[in-house]
Amino acid sequence: MTTSHDDLTLAEAASLLSGADMASTVSLPAHGIPSVVMTDGSNGVAMNLPDFSGKVAATCFPSSSAIAASWDPELVARVAARIAVEAKAAGAQVLLSPGMNLKRSPLGGRNFEYYSEDPILTGELAVGFVRGVQGQGIGACVKHFVANNQETDRMRVSAEVSERALRELYLRAFETVVTRAAPWLVMASYNKVNGTYVSEDPRLLTGVLRTEWGFEGVVVSDWGAVDDRERALRAGLDLEMPSTSGASAAALVAAVERGALEEGIVRRSAERVAALARRAHQSTDPAAPVDADPDALAVTAAERSIVLLANDGALPLDRSARVAVVGAFALAPRFQGGGSAGVNARRSPGSIVDALDRLRPGRVAFAAGYDETGTTGTESDLAEAVATAAAADVAIVVVGTPESAESEGYDRADLDLPAVQDRLVREVAAVTARTVVVVISGGPVRTEAWRHDVHAVIATGLAGQGISDALAAVLCGDAEPSGRLAETWPVDLADTPSHLSFPGEAGISVYGEGVFVGYRGHDLGGGRVAFAFGHGLSYATFEYSGLRVRATDEGWSVSLIVRNPSERGGREVVQLYVEPPESTPVRRPVRTLAAFESVLVDAGASREVTIEVPRRALERWDERLGRWTLDAGAHHLAVGASSRDVRLRAGITPEVADDRHPVTRESTLVEWLQHPVAGPALLAAVGEADPTGRTLGMLTNPVAVLMIGGLPIHRLAVDAGNALTEPLLAEIAARL
Amino acid sequence: MTTSHDDLTLAEAASLLSGADMASTVSLPAHGIPSVVMTDGSNGVAMNLPDFSGKVAATCFPSSSAIAASWDPELVARVAARIAVEAKAAGAQVLLSPGMNLKRSPLGGRNFEYYSEDPILTGELAVGFVRGVQGQGIGACVKHFVANNQETDRMRVSAEVSERALRELYLRAFETVVTRAAPWLVMASYNKVNGTYVSEDPRLLTGVLRTEWGFEGVVVSDWGAVDDRERALRAGLDLEMPSTSGASAAALVAAVERGALEEGIVRRSAERVAALARRAHQSTDPAAPVDADPDALAVTAAERSIVLLANDGALPLDRSARVAVVGAFALAPRFQGGGSAGVNARRSPGSIVDALDRLRPGRVAFAAGYDETGTTGTESDLAEAVATAAAADVAIVVVGTPESAESEGYDRADLDLPAVQDRLVREVAAVTARTVVVVISGGPVRTEAWRHDVHAVIATGLAGQGISDALAAVLCGDAEPSGRLAETWPVDLADTPSHLSFPGEAGISVYGEGVFVGYRGHDLGGGRVAFAFGHGLSYATFEYSGLRVRATDEGWSVSLIVRNPSERGGREVVQLYVEPPESTPVRRPVRTLAAFESVLVDAGASREVTIEVPRRALERWDERLGRWTLDAGAHHLAVGASSRDVRLRAGITPEVADDRHPVTRESTLVEWLQHPVAGPALLAAVGEADPTGRTLGMLTNPVAVLMIGGLPIHRLAVDAGNALTEPLLAEIAARL
Repeated sequence: MTTSHDDLTLAEAASLLSGADMASTVSLPAHGIPSVVMTDGSNGVAMNLPDFSGKVAATCFPSSSAIAASWDPELVARVAARIAVEAKAAGAQVLLSPGMNLKRSPLGGRNFEYYSEDPILTGELAVGFVRGVQGQGIGACVKHFVANNQETDRMRVSAEVSERALRELYLRAFETVVTRAAPWLVMASYNKVNGTYVSEDPRLLTGVLRTEWGFEGVVVSDWGAVDDRERALRAGLDLEMPSTSGASAAALVAAVERGALEEGIVRRSAERVAALARRAHQSTDPAAPVDADPDALAVTAAERSIVLLANDGALPLDRSARVAVVGAFALAPRFQGGGSAGVNARRSPGSIVDALDRLRPGRVAFAAGYDETGTTGTESDLAEAVATAAAADVAIVVVGTPESAESEGYDRADLDLPAVQDRLVREVAAVTARTVVVVISGGPVRTEAWRHDVHAVIATGLAGQGISDALAAVLCGDAEPSGRLAETWPVDLADTPSHLSFPGEAGISVYGEGVFVGYRGHDLGGGRVAFAFGHGLSYATFEYSGLRVRATDEGWSVSLIVRNPSERGGREVVQLYVEPPESTPVRRPVRTLAAFESVLVDAGASREVTIEVPRRALERWDERLGRWTLDAGAHHLAVGASSRDVRLRAGITPEVADDRHPVTRESTLVEWLQHPVAGPALLAAVGEADPTGRTLGMLTNPVAVLMIGGLPIHRLAVDAGNALTEPLLAEIAARL
Repeated sequence: MTTSHDDLTLAEAASLLSGADMASTVSLPAHGIPSVVMTDGSNGVAMNLPDFSGKVAATCFPSSSAIAASWDPELVARVAARIAVEAKAAGAQVLLSPGMNLKRSPLGGRNFEYYSEDPILTGELAVGFVRGVQGQGIGACVKHFVANNQETDRMRVSAEVSERALRELYLRAFETVVTRAAPWLVMASYNKVNGTYVSEDPRLLTGVLRTEWGFEGVVVSDWGAVDDRERALRAGLDLEMPSTSGASAAALVAAVERGALEEGIVRRSAERVAALARRAHQSTDPAAPVDADPDALAVTAAERSIVLLANDGALPLDRSARVAVVGAFALAPRFQGGGSAGVNARRSPGSIVDALDRLRPGRVAFAAGYDETGTTGTESDLAEAVATAAAADVAIVVVGTPESAESEGYDRADLDLPAVQDRLVREVAAVTARTVVVVISGGPVRTEAWRHDVHAVIATGLAGQGISDALAAVLCGDAEPSGRLAETWPVDLADTPSHLSFPGEAGISVYGEGVFVGYRGHDLGGGRVAFAFGHGLSYATFEYSGLRVRATDEGWSVSLIVRNPSERGGREVVQLYVEPPESTPVRRPVRTLAAFESVLVDAGASREVTIEVPRRALERWDERLGRWTLDAGAHHLAVGASSRDVRLRAGITPEVADDRHPVTRESTLVEWLQHPVAGPALLAAVGEADPTGRTLGMLTNPVAVLMIGGLPIHRLAVDAGNALTEPLLAEIAARL
């Protein structure tokens, strides 16, 4: 890895810094540097055939958005390992996954490729994915670094975002995965952050990524994301993709030759690309064990993706019930999203009706209700579906977003289901004893048209080729629903925190909600949500007790007992949230996820669960100090079944360093007076300089302080008749 | 006015550029330049006594926030004229009013000094105020220019706000008043805008104010707002206040002498201050007529400030009803806010109980219910109040924000009434046949605790010394309630559009809601509000008909008939909103106020109302073009009784100039292809340059365009094997 390639000519070194074609790097056989073949593939290998006539056939697993509902990094790792095996078999050495951008808005067109609105959950799942892939000896590439949270104008837009929101949210998951899982590559995104293209931002690509986090791999551009090759290289972007047919390399060589670019910068990035290439072709240790049956794994993963949002006893289906399945999507369910990550599924998911019929033979009727696009339906389609439902004991209405609603390249316009689907649910619910709604979508949909009129609601996500079998098993109770929402389902689009500023205009996207993304914003005012972050029901029930907290060197160790008093085994996701002190210097979310653990609990059994909470989970980013800091006061660790459903709570009051901001001439009078050293020093010095007491009187009169206390103190030092002077302030500040 | 003062020495000229003391300018008697005395006073003269032991006695009119509910610039002008007369009598030549910042959040601590959340309403009322003042031969000073929308960190905070929001909202009302009413002074605010102190921003103080709007008066600093005198002077800040005991003048002279500052800049501002001084002491034409009886005017203004928010028939009070007044604020109602604009009222408002008793002698009982601060109450206070209410036919519960909640210097913490007051309303409502709630506050309060349980709700605002008499008259039907809300009353604080970003942290206040302030944001998603912008009931009823729209040279002339079929005369505020086309290049508010007219309509009568709508009312600010533009398509002119209650609507499709953005190398492929000239030119040139058709194929393949169509086009010109080159793009762009 540290072999030097000083024997490369400058032209050879430069040639390594952009692609050989659409998907692979340049090889220099004479120097023992092979080509690296890369492929997309977040939910299965999405590798183009050599002639771009299609893609290789591959197992199609749940989209990241779906599998995130498992809250299970181990499951994600198993799936990722299988994808890696198939990628290797197809000839690739790098998988351009995981996509791990935060879901700033439920409208994000590519949200189905991402995990969550929460950076802790995103980070842990991404760690699982990277470890799963790299355990098979090929590289993972985390993407899209960073703040690439919309498709609208995605190749040019500037995300205008505070450093606090960057650190606490958008950079956070990348920090986790880079420091804990060491991905081989990081992909620089298309967008700008605060006016600078990420691909040309030395602070992000070098300062944060390499200096702060210790990243040692290759920074690759998103395809076509390099705007100025020389600036990008200086910033730390090693590899430009795709090929520019030699134009970029020639330009870099020319820049070196005319003295505009240091040759060492070219050679440093070339070393990184060469190291990647050697590593990619190393004979590795025997790969980590991997699931033998990918199709079975696809069904398991789909089962774990399913979230039971509501259930008043309609599920699981009675063994004897006559079941009506309505909705054309039940015949051909959507199971993945569109765009570069689309997989040529080796096996079709088949029909939900057939899958259910296999478990309840002869008891399942079907009517389409709407057309195969999911957008229209005739009156007779609808009438037939309603009649079919009326004749059954239970109606399962399958609805979902149309294929055209969710894809790389554009954002969703709204959260609505097509009107024909909402109407179908309402009309079926009006004539059926029990109505179960199954929502198939890559993100939240608006459920207000029928949410209070139905008996159970299931969200499957775009759950891959196993979707139909998994859903049937969950509906019948042969599998346990165990998913938890990785993002809030809002009542109305207008309730989402980013609503007023997403997706921006004129090349600017202001992240106006700051750190209050997703549940952090919804929970701030306690406003209504349809289904909260972390929410998900089980056929089993769980009780929490015995919360204990122990301080450790790194933070806190929390343990509790989860009991399952029901007659079914089930899987609980224990969610641990941190609640900041009541009074803090800046506004903070009501609670934020700190850690979580997915546990199986047998019927009637109890399990002790221990969760480690790092100190960082309590910290916030301080804009003025430019670093993480801990607020003084009583924090709470809260165990919840969702961000809105806290079950146990324990107080902790951590020791806090003196993170007071230093006073300067720009600090206000009040900030000076409240400073334990500067305040007394100021008053003493002023008293000495002005024996009349006039200046001292001004600084200590409560009414005057109310009016002038917010002035930067140097503005009180402009009066020639005043004992408060700039030299006096400088003298005190220097003393501190 | 244009006399030159070349005979002033540099030191003399510089001396004019900061105050002589706390409130007046430097005089140079030898040069015929007198001193100008300034005083605060938005709702009455707030002039300090010479020894600062108090303020001169003055008529106390409704706060700006209250009188704004009149939607009547003429009334505002009458009040302003009276204030000017009293200011002149007290020895002042400049009134430091009107305050006219936009209410970005209902929490703004100084909101009671401002008019509205809408810039059109704010601008028209400010025009009334300035004309009223200046008609008496003294100067008005509009403030606080600009984006000074919070008290938190107000002397240092940077408002981070888009140019579109500045132009459409925050600058808009100032533009109206400067171009239409020519105030003598504009006050530069404490805050920064996008990182630069307003007091040092040449773009705002000179570019926008003088060059674009033609302002010819004096720019004065808010008191202590000058951070760097030399920079401020260069930016266009003429007059620094208050005095710096000669230090600023000396520094400016020194800067000129060492060659760091052009003397002409000092002399230009000195000319402006000298011109102001001469104008202030000119013997003017006989002043415009002014109301003779200020106390009567104060009562009239208070009546016009009162908004009847809800009424199911409880008001006006039956002549025979036994009335219980509960709430300690009924004895000593709050009638103005705190801070520099506070007035030493010449006459106390007296008790609401007494005022009511004068109109309904012997029929009015009273109980305090809570203490005089409005924050606490004993159980026996409460019980007594409930018993008093139970014994009456109608209970009038007087509630409101405590004195400490609303003041210059800090922002409100929430919208809640003290818990004791909410409880009082609920308990009274539970035992009384008819409950009327009177809210006395400088801004919206949360009414959810009782809104649906009472029979009428009145908001008085901080209505000045006439509050008690005015309220009694409205309650009894001796005066008509005619106020309309100048700002939305939200259900919950969390529903307000600026909630997640107000008031910011670490010196930054991100205006994350952009142009969606107030009803513009509330209406976007159709979310709930307690009482909408523009809402207000009358004892009369009004019907609208006969909407006609006629195009004029400046815009559109709209006429309609307002009929009052009731048996009482009343005043209607006809509100005309503009609704943009359904599809627009950027997201726009659902509707925005364009113009309005307050009209008296006798019982049984009809009136024709004609309203002029300028073309600007339909325009939006385009960030890329850097100017106002009109979107193509069908707009609607909507006559509403509030922003949520449209009664009549007419479509207009204005002629639109070709405001297409020019294409550049930063424009996307799709922007090029959609351009009617650049698109065909590009395809022709590429076709010619690459006879194989490969490049043309890439640019026209629909799937490829979906993936690469958002790329800035120059990034497609980096491939050496590509017919699309930078010179080719430059050649086409140059041709356009």
